Amino acid sequence: MRDPVQNAELALLLEVAGTPKPGNVDRRRDHPDLRFEHFLAGAVGSVPGLRLAAGDAPLGDAFERAVAGMGEQSGGNTQFGALLLLVPLVRAASGGDLSPAGARRVCATTTVDDACAFYRAFEAVDVAVDDPPEGMEALDVRRGGDAEPALRERGLTLADVLADSAGVDGVAREWDEGFPRTFEAAAWLLADDGPIADRASRAFLRLLADEPDTFVEKRLDAETAREATERARDALDGRADPEALAEEFVARGVNPGTTADVTAAALFVALERGMEV
Amino acid sequence: MRDPVQNAELALLLEVAGTPKPGNVDRRRDHPDLRFEHFLAGAVGSVPGLRLAAGDAPLGDAFERAVAGMGEQSGGNTQFGALLLLVPLVRAASGGDLSPAGARRVCATTTVDDACAFYRAFEAVDVAVDDPPEGMEALDVRRGGDAEPALRERGLTLADVLADSAGVDGVAREWDEGFPRTFEAAAWLLADDGPIADRASRAFLRLLADEPDTFVEKRLDAETAREATERARDALDGRADPEALAEEFVARGVNPGTTADVTAAALFVALERGMEV
Repeated sequence: MRDPVQNAELALLLEVAGTPKPGNVDRRRDHPDLRFEHFLAGAVGSVPGLRLAAGDAPLGDAFERAVAGMGEQSGGNTQFGALLLLVPLVRAASGGDLSPAGARRVCATTTVDDACAFYRAFEAVDVAVDDPPEGMEALDVRRGGDAEPALRERGLTLADVLADSAGVDGVAREWDEGFPRTFEAAAWLLADDGPIADRASRAFLRLLADEPDTFVEKRLDAETAREATERARDALDGRADPEALAEEFVARGVNPGTTADVTAAALFVALERGMEV
Repeated sequence: MRDPVQNAELALLLEVAGTPKPGNVDRRRDHPDLRFEHFLAGAVGSVPGLRLAAGDAPLGDAFERAVAGMGEQSGGNTQFGALLLLVPLVRAASGGDLSPAGARRVCATTTVDDACAFYRAFEAVDVAVDDPPEGMEALDVRRGGDAEPALRERGLTLADVLADSAGVDGVAREWDEGFPRTFEAAAWLLADDGPIADRASRAFLRLLADEPDTFVEKRLDAETAREATERARDALDGRADPEALAEEFVARGVNPGTTADVTAAALFVALERGMEV
């Protein structure tokens, strides 16, 4: 029996293996400098941090360690958002309550120290972020550990920090709302059949069809994110070929990374709930 | 920094990602009932056993545990031979001497208990083996743990058992001879450049071009194994297209699994020696 840490690692691997996942690195597609093998090394490297998440280390430390290990490959950021989802979910699973309520409880226990560790994690890899709103410069995640005094002064926990970003970041929104899309997509995966990598591809398309990807919004713009969602709907409805869409999105640099993060988290929940590989 | 256990797991993942590796499951090809995702789960599942190999547990127990974890997926045997190579190499690396001499020393320390654990490992998965020679029925690996009395009576260590198979099994031969092909292919990987998955594909082709695959000999016959080696030479020399060869071999069920096992072991040695992903 795989434990939650092994299932989390396997979820990262199955996510990147799922194909087609239009715009993302998958079993059939690389980006120019970010290749499939970087995701394999990222998944392996994240395990010591995930193991902290399964124990009783502070959640922020577990995340910081996971990201540092993930970053020990030459491709750059591979799974930052996925790990941000997986760390509290692994904690909830280890505590015996992998449910929206259980995950919410884990997030609610986070502290200012966890927030500081979260900021430090940004020093390990280059994560795509927008400029902070006016007046929030002191809390720009790109400041890394230098934001600590501002975090302490305002008494912001990791849950607070992510709640502040819930409007613009799909991963933060999962934290803030009890992981609704993660658990919904896990149910899709469990109800589906066939190879897991194919189910991952279908779950990805459904998630993207449901909601514009906030990573695309940040890296490109809201219009492209809306277009990606409409095109995913066409692919789901059979009006477009998902393989062709995958080729086009990779060529255009339209990379729905947040949707991939939620797919990885959903794979984890489905594995924990008995999905057999 | 990845430790030897992480590098061993990553080696298993990079091996299966390498494409084309004619006849084997790779990033682009599945067999009908043995898919890429089974190899991902096999690699993740083998880690607790690999961790025993990095510690001071008996080597046979480490292997038995690695195989049991590897087998916790529905595809069947994915990495039995690769783990048989990796377990002593991980032990040697953890002891600070990952060299042919260091690996030989590890193998030489094995005991009759290790041999019994090795036999028990065959109970966890269906491994392709030939009938034993006449008079050796009591030592048929397919007897699993039932072979224990015969092993004890004859005082056979794991190294002895593998030495007996060195003539017909390429993995056993590596054990018996200080892993010559593993270390040679590791040197090729380190001297090569470009994506690791491409290097793995080239190393696989060179290994196959050098020597007929004993897994193909067992599953099919010696003539097919010789043909596979000749075809690999043609592919290496540019007289044949490796991708076309991969399609043909998968369709014909020509599966050079021993060559893949040695490729995985070579990837491990190369990672330990600083090959960057």
